[in-house]
Amino acid sequence: MYPDSIKSLIESFKCLPGIGEKTAERLAFSVLGLEDEQIELFSSSLLEVKDKIGKCVHCNTLTDSDECFVCKDTTRDSHLLCIVEDPKSVFLFEKLGMFHGKYHVLDGLISPLDGVNPEDIGLNKLLDRIQNEHFDELIFAFKPSIEGETTALYIKKILDGYNIKITRLASGLPIGADMEYVDSLTLERALSDRKVIE
Amino acid sequence: MYPDSIKSLIESFKCLPGIGEKTAERLAFSVLGLEDEQIELFSSSLLEVKDKIGKCVHCNTLTDSDECFVCKDTTRDSHLLCIVEDPKSVFLFEKLGMFHGKYHVLDGLISPLDGVNPEDIGLNKLLDRIQNEHFDELIFAFKPSIEGETTALYIKKILDGYNIKITRLASGLPIGADMEYVDSLTLERALSDRKVIE
Repeated sequence: MYPDSIKSLIESFKCLPGIGEKTAERLAFSVLGLEDEQIELFSSSLLEVKDKIGKCVHCNTLTDSDECFVCKDTTRDSHLLCIVEDPKSVFLFEKLGMFHGKYHVLDGLISPLDGVNPEDIGLNKLLDRIQNEHFDELIFAFKPSIEGETTALYIKKILDGYNIKITRLASGLPIGADMEYVDSLTLERALSDRKVIE
Repeated sequence: MYPDSIKSLIESFKCLPGIGEKTAERLAFSVLGLEDEQIELFSSSLLEVKDKIGKCVHCNTLTDSDECFVCKDTTRDSHLLCIVEDPKSVFLFEKLGMFHGKYHVLDGLISPLDGVNPEDIGLNKLLDRIQNEHFDELIFAFKPSIEGETTALYIKKILDGYNIKITRLASGLPIGADMEYVDSLTLERALSDRKVIE
């Protein structure tokens, strides 16, 4: 029913996560309303992203050169390492602008149920780094989930002999949350991690 | 902060309607996870859609040749014309598979507040068609809105001397709707357009 080129564009949008048939159709039709220039830029950006983007040789952050912008930056605290589960998390933290240490990006989290074992998430590269660089503190910045906990505990156990402070992000009530809508696991964590008011 | 090519891809996604900063970032990152082949197809589909897709010479439906698939189809009822506000509506009806007449696509609806006047929506081409082809019935399939009503009334007035049956899509309760969530305008229309049970 659709002309071939529209059909193929709809299929392409459907490859993206969270985009179903209807949204893909809506987006494909909206492309017809874009300027020629915008479409050409869109089309070339797609190719460029795959061509130019790779992982930082030190920390796996996405970058278009060998070293990412964080590893290049000599003003950052090189004794503080934030370990994240995916490249996107680095950019989330950088947007905050609150963290001034270094990052290390894993290939996801340990999840035996999904067949992701410790050897699959690039821990060797992390361990090499910990052995060669001098970190005072490792911060686990994983999503609060069984996979996040498992990965954190696993790495902590490997590093048993090292004299490094190991921390994780605080869990608890999200700011602005209505008490009645907070789930029970979060409430439980907020209670057990309660803080002294000083 | 983002490498240039990711930044430019995020900007491209943001050109699409309903896609904000966060979604654009999510989509751009997900492109990195696609196969090379998928990305190349996506990139070329974008260019092709703009290159190849145009309007049907008869009815303005989007097509990759001169005539659209409906106008080409000699088995369709050429005495019945469904007038729609945009090319997408044609595909909505075709998906239903219930309508076997012809279509005519306007360039939107009359909306004086947005500066869209009767001469802006391509009525001349429609009138030419009505004069040259023999239609028994025109169906206005516009969205139920002031603009839809205005456009329908305007065309009906122009066609005053013609002996053509003019209809519009029924308005009323959407199937499956909860009475308490139906808005008052819809309820009003459902009441005034009530049907005899036969």
